Amino acid sequence: MAKVCVLRLGHRVGRDQRTTTHVFLVARAFGADEGVLCGEEDSQVVEGMRRVCAKWGGKFSVSQEKNWKVFLKKRKAEGWVVAHLTMYGVDFEEGVKKLREGRKNVVVVVGAGKVPKEAYHLADMNLAVGNQPHSEVAALAVFLDRFFCGRQFRKKFEGKVKIIPSPCGKIVVCGKNN
Amino acid sequence: MAKVCVLRLGHRVGRDQRTTTHVFLVARAFGADEGVLCGEEDSQVVEGMRRVCAKWGGKFSVSQEKNWKVFLKKRKAEGWVVAHLTMYGVDFEEGVKKLREGRKNVVVVVGAGKVPKEAYHLADMNLAVGNQPHSEVAALAVFLDRFFCGRQFRKKFEGKVKIIPSPCGKIVVCGKNN
Repeated sequence: MAKVCVLRLGHRVGRDQRTTTHVFLVARAFGADEGVLCGEEDSQVVEGMRRVCAKWGGKFSVSQEKNWKVFLKKRKAEGWVVAHLTMYGVDFEEGVKKLREGRKNVVVVVGAGKVPKEAYHLADMNLAVGNQPHSEVAALAVFLDRFFCGRQFRKKFEGKVKIIPSPCGKIVVCGKNN
Repeated sequence: MAKVCVLRLGHRVGRDQRTTTHVFLVARAFGADEGVLCGEEDSQVVEGMRRVCAKWGGKFSVSQEKNWKVFLKKRKAEGWVVAHLTMYGVDFEEGVKKLREGRKNVVVVVGAGKVPKEAYHLADMNLAVGNQPHSEVAALAVFLDRFFCGRQFRKKFEGKVKIIPSPCGKIVVCGKNN
């Protein structure tokens, strides 16, 4: 199975902390392997995500990269495809189809604030999850849901805690790795 | 076609403004008809959404409700079904199937912070978009995407501005209602 890395571009401490955390939480819960933080350094977001992974399980890793251009060029040289999610892009359903057929590892770029022009050019695909304004968190979730065809919800995370689905209320039990 | 109303429960001014705005932006872009803000009063969020609707088109309406329990009971008495999105709930795919078959209008409840027990009891369904922690914005987007089977991306909004999908860059033109 192809690997998926989610790159958060242009993160700003303070303003973006909650949204960036949501981006990485979605990346992890929706089957991505890796989250990469670019923009302002923010160990709070990275450490917070590591705590989530330690508690809830799975093999999602998070790191910070100083230079997103160097990072993307390196990944492209290694054969990864770069898909940038933007409301200005082309139909993501077509893009997802091509990516699935190509079976290559994918870097999904999710911007915070204004995305530099170079990101549009470095990306192999600029994909729009609809051409209306909404949310990068939503765009990433729907993109990954289509990419993994909903199978991400059947993934076993084997964490310290685990939710037992309940029709009314909350049931949290110890997981296998506790 | 059944109507969809998205109720944001327990909104807190300051802390939740960006996320609540994303919840309503997703509601609008993903085909819902109505957004209802419950919790602390926040005309900034409501007015911001109204500006988005005026610019980008569509018939999405936003309002504030002081008492979410009264609101939900009223809607239920009018025949609406209440679906609450929570990581503790049961498989949303089954829930969406039932809702689509039922053809009734739906209130989707999306909580901010800790959701009161009564909300779980008032809801006809407590649905989990995966049982891992992620984001209410993501949960709503994937729920609506499945509910509308992706057709929401073909919806015509007829706003003052319109994006022309582009493989690289940004093309925004005047819409029909400019």
